[in-house]
Amino acid sequence: MKVIIVGGVAGGASCAARLRRLDEKAEILLVERGPYVSYANCGLPYHIGGSIENEASLLVATEQMFRAVFAIDCRTNCEVVGINSSKKTVDLKNHLTGEVTTEKYDKLVLSPGAAPIRPPLPGIDLPGIFSVRTVPDAKHIREWLDRDAINTGMNEYSGVNTIAKPKNAVVVGGGFIGLEMVENLIERGLGVTLIEKLNQVMPPLDPEMALVVKRYMEKHGVKVELNDGVAGFRNSTDGMIEVLTESGKVYPAEIVILAIGVKPETELAKMAGLELGKRGGFKVDDQMRTSNPDIFAVGDAVEVKDFVTGEWTLIPLAGPANRQGRIVADVLCGRDSRYRGTQGTSICKIFDAAISQTGVSEKTLKRLGETDYEKIYTYPNSHAGYYPGAKILVIKTIFRKSDGKLLGAQVLGEDGVPKRIDSFAMAIQMGCTIYDLEESELCYAPPYGSAKDPVNFAGMVAADVLKGDMPLIHWGSIGNGFLLDVRNPQELEVESVKGAVNIPLPMLRSRLNELPKDREIHVFCRSAQRSYYATRILLQNGFKVRNISGGTIARSHKVD
Amino acid sequence: MKVIIVGGVAGGASCAARLRRLDEKAEILLVERGPYVSYANCGLPYHIGGSIENEASLLVATEQMFRAVFAIDCRTNCEVVGINSSKKTVDLKNHLTGEVTTEKYDKLVLSPGAAPIRPPLPGIDLPGIFSVRTVPDAKHIREWLDRDAINTGMNEYSGVNTIAKPKNAVVVGGGFIGLEMVENLIERGLGVTLIEKLNQVMPPLDPEMALVVKRYMEKHGVKVELNDGVAGFRNSTDGMIEVLTESGKVYPAEIVILAIGVKPETELAKMAGLELGKRGGFKVDDQMRTSNPDIFAVGDAVEVKDFVTGEWTLIPLAGPANRQGRIVADVLCGRDSRYRGTQGTSICKIFDAAISQTGVSEKTLKRLGETDYEKIYTYPNSHAGYYPGAKILVIKTIFRKSDGKLLGAQVLGEDGVPKRIDSFAMAIQMGCTIYDLEESELCYAPPYGSAKDPVNFAGMVAADVLKGDMPLIHWGSIGNGFLLDVRNPQELEVESVKGAVNIPLPMLRSRLNELPKDREIHVFCRSAQRSYYATRILLQNGFKVRNISGGTIARSHKVD
Repeated sequence: MKVIIVGGVAGGASCAARLRRLDEKAEILLVERGPYVSYANCGLPYHIGGSIENEASLLVATEQMFRAVFAIDCRTNCEVVGINSSKKTVDLKNHLTGEVTTEKYDKLVLSPGAAPIRPPLPGIDLPGIFSVRTVPDAKHIREWLDRDAINTGMNEYSGVNTIAKPKNAVVVGGGFIGLEMVENLIERGLGVTLIEKLNQVMPPLDPEMALVVKRYMEKHGVKVELNDGVAGFRNSTDGMIEVLTESGKVYPAEIVILAIGVKPETELAKMAGLELGKRGGFKVDDQMRTSNPDIFAVGDAVEVKDFVTGEWTLIPLAGPANRQGRIVADVLCGRDSRYRGTQGTSICKIFDAAISQTGVSEKTLKRLGETDYEKIYTYPNSHAGYYPGAKILVIKTIFRKSDGKLLGAQVLGEDGVPKRIDSFAMAIQMGCTIYDLEESELCYAPPYGSAKDPVNFAGMVAADVLKGDMPLIHWGSIGNGFLLDVRNPQELEVESVKGAVNIPLPMLRSRLNELPKDREIHVFCRSAQRSYYATRILLQNGFKVRNISGGTIARSHKVD
Repeated sequence: MKVIIVGGVAGGASCAARLRRLDEKAEILLVERGPYVSYANCGLPYHIGGSIENEASLLVATEQMFRAVFAIDCRTNCEVVGINSSKKTVDLKNHLTGEVTTEKYDKLVLSPGAAPIRPPLPGIDLPGIFSVRTVPDAKHIREWLDRDAINTGMNEYSGVNTIAKPKNAVVVGGGFIGLEMVENLIERGLGVTLIEKLNQVMPPLDPEMALVVKRYMEKHGVKVELNDGVAGFRNSTDGMIEVLTESGKVYPAEIVILAIGVKPETELAKMAGLELGKRGGFKVDDQMRTSNPDIFAVGDAVEVKDFVTGEWTLIPLAGPANRQGRIVADVLCGRDSRYRGTQGTSICKIFDAAISQTGVSEKTLKRLGETDYEKIYTYPNSHAGYYPGAKILVIKTIFRKSDGKLLGAQVLGEDGVPKRIDSFAMAIQMGCTIYDLEESELCYAPPYGSAKDPVNFAGMVAADVLKGDMPLIHWGSIGNGFLLDVRNPQELEVESVKGAVNIPLPMLRSRLNELPKDREIHVFCRSAQRSYYATRILLQNGFKVRNISGGTIARSHKVD
């Protein structure tokens, strides 16, 4: 069996290595267009920022290692320029020699990845505008940032060497790479403006959660401009790059990072006559087989089934790419491995905080017209409040109303985020209900958690909602209910809610006569815990009442 | 309905609060023998160490709060001195006034906890020997440690004021509290000796994992003495406390902490004529009902079903206690809540490291005569190795051979431990197999993980074993196999294994003729990854071969 694997990062490299382990006799040819195989593209922003100083640290495995350890014919700087799927051949161009050769395959595995989107805007090719995908990209950005420290005569950008040493950056796009670049440019001492066409940063999050992230970035000195697309770029007379937006604004900078998103590289699909899906990625079955049974595709270029919704979608993530590569190797060796879909579990560091999500978002549910769901907002401490260093977590938990099944979770915070998102991720994988979360036994010691872990706590609150113990409402729906604030008077001095009547919780039982029996009471406190107690008191005294999820904290990030 | 709840910490307090939420009309009497309700006993070692400076931080809820917010008749310094279960009354003694009153109940909930074991050894009541259970205990220890700074005339220990300011401590017992006290006494600048009767610290771990912990503690300056029980205590003429051991050794110190373990407080069971289990805890059903249907028991004093083995056992943990309290409240209100058993998920901080476990240990499986299991040792980075701060995790994963079901996991390390143990904990709760772990989608970004998370990786390795792709052996079983070391020569200079033949992995294919076909080959490297590749090469070339799990790292902690 001769297998040609196209693309030597993540999915392709994983496939090649596992295939060799499973089949010592297979002839394996691994080709990579760029100069490196199996490099750590996820580390590029940190290499640019300087926390990963050496480029060599990013090279996980080399061409030589693939040859020596895996007996794989590994070729870098080698691009597929033609596929003849009836003859089962590929044409390979060696970029160093220009030579084109043709190789036969029995099975072909395509792992081309996804390319940064570079819309055909005026000025997009001006020097100083970069995407972040490859090791050379990172090298060019570092050189640009450092450039007044080197001899400009040696500099490939010397044509624009009137531009000052970069002090201002514009990052276009507020997704994972955009946010990581924001952090790393700030880390290098630049002033950074983030421009995002959507109404939020970090698209996998729901907007109200993304608002928390936006404010956090602003607190760290980032200028964040939402709802404004980039219209073009030009050089100003004083040597700046001016970023022009659709709303007519102009942002000058010495460096621009384009991180608008990625799109599947599907040139190879066209060459091989393969079917694409509706979202523009390779269409594959659950064994990663394309419309041609001898050709497989993995990684960021393929459409995957959303594990929760069953929809076909594009979710470019390293973990799934690696696992898909392994599955193809299994399938090529006659094993019945199957890919079970992608949950979208992901995390992003921004300054001291982590932003994470798994499963489905509310906006996806809305887009699908789904109404059989509820959501709760909780703000527990990352660990026991009495132990130093506890931070507030911001958690949104989404679950099915009819059966309590956990559908999605979003967790933000400066401490303990990975612990919680992975608990939720494992829970979703295994079909957990919120009743299971309620009973989960997660690790607890004061430096790491609480006796009721934030994940338990989310399950407990959600179960209270579904069991009818705590009718819920969200700020966007309160309409003309009777607004009851059960916080202490001192708290009102910090933040008061217009139109709310204040009865501190400890006085509630003795002041029930002040409340209406004929209107629905919407009760809140700071985080919805005391108002839950109030809800219970009122319900059992014959009032119509709903607890406002997340209290004034949720209100501050405009939950609706 | 009148409910009397005995014990105002963890289980009792949770039960009381939830009962009030569910039933506004119930008459609830919460009594606590000590001066505080709902205090954070898990925080006591850190209060002694000083990282939690104020005693008040440990008081989660007060008697006044229970009265004001929950309308609960809460009485501290109030001890149950008699139970008449036929008349359904309890006799309560007010420790401040000495007065004894009798109260009727409809339902009685007992949450007495477990008491530190204080064996009747000679000298055990000498001043300077302490247990750590209550807020007053912590206060006395702090005073003792600080005592040359206070007027000895005011000091209750002034009878022994010839003892110098404490510089040396002996901690007896290497469980959770013992280890936390070791850290906190070192934190205060004391020299600490830990004496443990067993052959390991941290009894929930298997011994080879505990050895890693022991060495880590030694590296941090702790003197750890295993296999030696304490025989007694005496005062020396120079004013020290001498700890005498069964082996005849003498350890002088100015303070001794007893942390030998805890035993259920079952005085109340005797008073009420309740049945105890074989392990000496309250016997309860899955609704926490004792042998008397009107009396419930929760927390550290009850026997729980081990979630994995089904055995009745004693597992004193705060999370389970809290959840049991909630379940009793549900049951009292006619709900069908049930406790699903305890997994033993736990974590302990020791210096910069965390020690954690969930599910069953190998030693428990051995004790039960179970043989249908396998174990693997893996040593992945806590996050991408190229991102700063990655640390090696030490992971033992235990799974059923016949069906791949995950049975237990132990995770040690200085970074990323809570993320992994909680993934394992959730996996065990939901009945995961190692094949599920293989496909888990856990969060990844370079600062937090790897594209193949350590939990995935454990699943992948375990699956390789069960699918027959990687026959496994452990150091203790290698017998007279042919020992093959596939590390690089430089690594042998650091640590060589006697009797092993070295063929570096990249040369293996060309040197197969040096290996015997008639003997089983046992192959190893540093962490068992390269030796896994070697195993695949050898298997497919017709050799009999087994990979030695965990490589030389596992060897260093005496895996057998």
